[in-house]
Amino acid sequence: MSLKLTILGCHSATPRVNAHPTSQFLEIKNHNFLIDCGEGTQVQLRKYGIKFSKIKHIFISHLHGDHMYGLIGLISTFTLLNRETELHIYAPKGLKEIITLQLKLSNSWTHYPLLFHELTSKKSEVIFEDEKVEVHTIPLNHRVYTNGFLFKEKLGERKLNIDEISNFKEIDVCDYQNLKNGRDYKLQNGTILKNEMLTFEPSKPKSYAFCSDSSYFPEIIPVIKNVNCLYHESTFLSDREELASKTKHSTAAQAASIAKQAEVKQLIIGHFSSRYKNIDDFKTEAQEIYKNTLLAEAGKVFEIN
Amino acid sequence: MSLKLTILGCHSATPRVNAHPTSQFLEIKNHNFLIDCGEGTQVQLRKYGIKFSKIKHIFISHLHGDHMYGLIGLISTFTLLNRETELHIYAPKGLKEIITLQLKLSNSWTHYPLLFHELTSKKSEVIFEDEKVEVHTIPLNHRVYTNGFLFKEKLGERKLNIDEISNFKEIDVCDYQNLKNGRDYKLQNGTILKNEMLTFEPSKPKSYAFCSDSSYFPEIIPVIKNVNCLYHESTFLSDREELASKTKHSTAAQAASIAKQAEVKQLIIGHFSSRYKNIDDFKTEAQEIYKNTLLAEAGKVFEIN
Repeated sequence: MSLKLTILGCHSATPRVNAHPTSQFLEIKNHNFLIDCGEGTQVQLRKYGIKFSKIKHIFISHLHGDHMYGLIGLISTFTLLNRETELHIYAPKGLKEIITLQLKLSNSWTHYPLLFHELTSKKSEVIFEDEKVEVHTIPLNHRVYTNGFLFKEKLGERKLNIDEISNFKEIDVCDYQNLKNGRDYKLQNGTILKNEMLTFEPSKPKSYAFCSDSSYFPEIIPVIKNVNCLYHESTFLSDREELASKTKHSTAAQAASIAKQAEVKQLIIGHFSSRYKNIDDFKTEAQEIYKNTLLAEAGKVFEIN
Repeated sequence: MSLKLTILGCHSATPRVNAHPTSQFLEIKNHNFLIDCGEGTQVQLRKYGIKFSKIKHIFISHLHGDHMYGLIGLISTFTLLNRETELHIYAPKGLKEIITLQLKLSNSWTHYPLLFHELTSKKSEVIFEDEKVEVHTIPLNHRVYTNGFLFKEKLGERKLNIDEISNFKEIDVCDYQNLKNGRDYKLQNGTILKNEMLTFEPSKPKSYAFCSDSSYFPEIIPVIKNVNCLYHESTFLSDREELASKTKHSTAAQAASIAKQAEVKQLIIGHFSSRYKNIDDFKTEAQEIYKNTLLAEAGKVFEIN
């Protein structure tokens, strides 16, 4: 299956009736990751039919409200829904204190294990890993400590070449796993069948980089090089490049420049400032530098192949 | 002008697409009070065209999420909108710590004075007063420290009887304020005109009592006696009276019983549990005990005369 990204919110600063702050839901190799959680995220999850119980890992880029004010509500709702499975939260140091203080003062502790992974490093690091997926931080340059996140599939198993295998009656189904793992096969007559003859290359691992609030910051390029899809914030157009720099945000042109230099396959931009009435202008500006640019939009699903 | 109450949200527990947690906007004698502030309240304010700058006083009943998770977002939005006027927040002790911790960790202090009035008393007390209005707490019985709020107009000035006054040419416009204040008028010939002859009674002061989460708690009756309008939570129907008691909530019948005993003029019920599909059942149950019961509904405006 391809990576599947659902945009829950993609606007900056304050939530409005039809403009929701940052949140994304990423499906990757049977994992379901929530990325950022602005106010109202739980309502957006319901609106787009995403089951709350699927979410086991939440990644928070930084402690500005439009990226995390919806988290305490979601955590409380999990409790009300009688959640029992553990929830992992990867976030800058400080979030644990905010959440636990609120749970304490409302006398509403979770019944499920709530595990915080507090981030402090200014270097890219692996913060989640299993046999199928790994997640790296992407240190960004914003007004407070901020990370983007790089979600990478690991190289999967080789694929069986059933047509070829069927020429050798003595290869049994129980040998298949060894073949998928890359082993050669030794026939009873001593002949070695090279693995490459019996299997195909595994699917190329896919990757998605989420870069929330940041000034133009080319230091991230080595970390996100060649990803299949890059989400990069684009709060302003170039007419406000100075304001972007002052508030440590990016323009559409700067996001596109990062995408071009990092040679990514696709760029999605979002985090639009409410001062712009025509969001299409962001696309126009970015596409002048990097053609394969798409606009984030609440409810939009991107299949990343 | 009558009191004007706009319901922003009236459902319990978790916000859903068309079910918003508790918040109300009360206009009383040129004051604009926000009462409770569940997640998404700022979007509801925008939806119903209420200007953010009008709000100078926010009253929070208790520290459960469905009554206050929207507050930090609203405070932050005020900053983004360059608010300069002070904001007063009346809330249980602890809220100040929650808000200031979040502002500190997001490095986003308000540019306007943010003044907390922390409540700890278990007895009804006056927490706001000026020449026109006073606000009293209504201690409730919930799982955490909780207050309702009683908003009372003060007795206004007497109204001029212009027809009668015009019979006395020597009464000047600059005497009017003394007449409104209740003073008699002495004519040049020494005759005393009694104030009652020249003025009418002032409008009867109106009052609104907001009682958020509480078990059935008749101790509040003396405090809310004869109010023009009582909002009383009604989370459950009588079929779940035991659950209501266990979670320290009320049923529609219990809310109606309080309204009847307190001889209020009108009852509004809300804070409906999502387990009930037909909200009209709450009205039916309450009206069996107290006829003048209305249902809260987001966007609904009640004029309290």
